[in-house]
Amino acid sequence: MKLYDMKDAPNPRRVRVFLAEKGIKLDTVQIDIMGGENLQEDYLAVNPRGVLPTLQLDNGSIIDEAAAICRYFEDTHPAPPLFGDTPQSKAAVESWIRQIETDAFTPAADVLRNTNPVFENRSVPGTSDTPQVPALAERGVQRIQGFYARLDQHLATSSYVAHNCFTAADITAMCAIDFAEFVGVEVPAELVRLAEWRTRVSARPSAAA
Amino acid sequence: MKLYDMKDAPNPRRVRVFLAEKGIKLDTVQIDIMGGENLQEDYLAVNPRGVLPTLQLDNGSIIDEAAAICRYFEDTHPAPPLFGDTPQSKAAVESWIRQIETDAFTPAADVLRNTNPVFENRSVPGTSDTPQVPALAERGVQRIQGFYARLDQHLATSSYVAHNCFTAADITAMCAIDFAEFVGVEVPAELVRLAEWRTRVSARPSAAA
Repeated sequence: MKLYDMKDAPNPRRVRVFLAEKGIKLDTVQIDIMGGENLQEDYLAVNPRGVLPTLQLDNGSIIDEAAAICRYFEDTHPAPPLFGDTPQSKAAVESWIRQIETDAFTPAADVLRNTNPVFENRSVPGTSDTPQVPALAERGVQRIQGFYARLDQHLATSSYVAHNCFTAADITAMCAIDFAEFVGVEVPAELVRLAEWRTRVSARPSAAA
Repeated sequence: MKLYDMKDAPNPRRVRVFLAEKGIKLDTVQIDIMGGENLQEDYLAVNPRGVLPTLQLDNGSIIDEAAAICRYFEDTHPAPPLFGDTPQSKAAVESWIRQIETDAFTPAADVLRNTNPVFENRSVPGTSDTPQVPALAERGVQRIQGFYARLDQHLATSSYVAHNCFTAADITAMCAIDFAEFVGVEVPAELVRLAEWRTRVSARPSAAA
């Protein structure tokens, strides 16, 4: 089994942090998205979609999409549970992951892919030839800022994002916020609850994975 | 327990079809997104995000995001399993749901919300005041068409979307395709496998839910 990974990319990081929390070690193969290695023949033979991360199982089949790879390991290595442990907490983790993706992760990717010349005609991840839409970058910044205010408010009554313990929602949020910072969207100084939570989850050894 | 729903909206439909497959009946409250009822005080008191669908539990707490509501009922009513029944099939269902959302569902929403005057300054679901970006509609059509070609190819070796039985991935795809058709993107006639699968899943009683 091996993980096709890119050390500096935010979605593969979600999987690496998740694996570190589970105590799972995998062989990885580094693929350079910025340089377009994900769109070259060798990688497309592994995953024709050209996206990362991809988990290749020992039987040769693949699983892509960060959330799907994490769920695979949640099933094979249930402890500690990172997708919740009751019907309601599981639903909360799923809902928050979706909200983080929609309102922070994807908008941060929109900023990067619709402004950086490296992604000219690659504004959508994968193999499609899609021109940049600069207005999407503006919209992205606005969405991220709105989400940060909401998450800060939520953290007034919850010590973690989705539940009263650390879950995959915290991993997703941490990776999204670090990614947004990389593309130039900072956490506003007045959002002290968000900053405190971020310091706390970033201090976990898994954050360096 | 009750479901805040909109009969003609595609995301609430995912939940209704899922519930029908599980044999679960719920009280529903209809909220008119087109008319902006989801952004009025009464509904925002239920769900401050202003999105649909929302499940309100008997304890008063809410679960939003269609996938999260479905996962709640997968846990409370495990039979028949609709999110897979092995680690690998569960990961495949999750991965396909993500791909359908990214490459068909969201692009169809982008077409609708960035062209229809009803959604002026509501181009992003929920409470944010976000102007329309017409270029996103063009991109949306292109993404949907690319996805249809890929799904048709995949159905050459699989009788259902994610697994060899009907799952939530089929529900998501059916709802996405019907929604894309509503916004003007048809399934090309030459994609006969996609058309055959669509006819088959649309004939299930749950499709009318």
